[in-house]
Amino acid sequence: MRQQLTVLTLGVTDLDESKRFYIDGLGWTPTLDVPGEVVFFQIAGGQLLALFGKRDLEADADGQALSDPGAAPISLGYNVDSEAEVVEALAQAEAAGATIIKPAQRADFGGFHGYFADPSGFRWEVVYNAGFHIADDGTVSIGAVP
Amino acid sequence: MRQQLTVLTLGVTDLDESKRFYIDGLGWTPTLDVPGEVVFFQIAGGQLLALFGKRDLEADADGQALSDPGAAPISLGYNVDSEAEVVEALAQAEAAGATIIKPAQRADFGGFHGYFADPSGFRWEVVYNAGFHIADDGTVSIGAVP
Repeated sequence: MRQQLTVLTLGVTDLDESKRFYIDGLGWTPTLDVPGEVVFFQIAGGQLLALFGKRDLEADADGQALSDPGAAPISLGYNVDSEAEVVEALAQAEAAGATIIKPAQRADFGGFHGYFADPSGFRWEVVYNAGFHIADDGTVSIGAVP
Repeated sequence: MRQQLTVLTLGVTDLDESKRFYIDGLGWTPTLDVPGEVVFFQIAGGQLLALFGKRDLEADADGQALSDPGAAPISLGYNVDSEAEVVEALAQAEAAGATIIKPAQRADFGGFHGYFADPSGFRWEVVYNAGFHIADDGTVSIGAVP
């Protein structure tokens, strides 16, 4: 297997509510929207985010019940270029209907961050890490905070 | 917020076991490996996958307990270019220590797919969808299966 992720699917509790958050609230543009079924957004080079009903995802995988998404053991990271942008992005997410679960503050690793939860409880970390950089060709470097 | 995901963090149950699976088993190369703490892999243009202890992720977010990762309400998609490659990738993952949770088969949407679980239970869907395409500049298109 190549070192690649092409689609990240979130099993959401209410597809319409999630679409309102990402499309109307954050202003994102879908690559493909199949009303009542699934919606895809491009979120990185060569990669889509899919919002799919949690029950549909269960059925598509193996029928086993999936856990409460309010406490999913993942986080979705959104790196920005300054502490001020952390504050701004959290405010924008809150205005769009997100729940702030950790206000903007100094992070243990030396950067600055905060967390919000989307309508299904998926956690986004908004973070400023001066050691994180994306080159023009998409190559990511990450190192110690200067 | 821009339409972008820069880091996807999986809260794993055993970091060393997860590293053995992705590095030794699948042959992936870390961008940064901080032994006993965290490991990062580039998995898309402008994006890293982070493996981080589940307890550490709980502490970093807001201290609330996270759900059993064996049934996380997400899937990680790995698109390939043929049905044969679905079979091959699932076999490679199984040989690396993954659990097959849905053998390769026709998918409801018209493509061909199967699922495996990594050592922490995170589900990867290996899928052939003739309507999925990544252009040279990283732009993804997805449509009905021809």
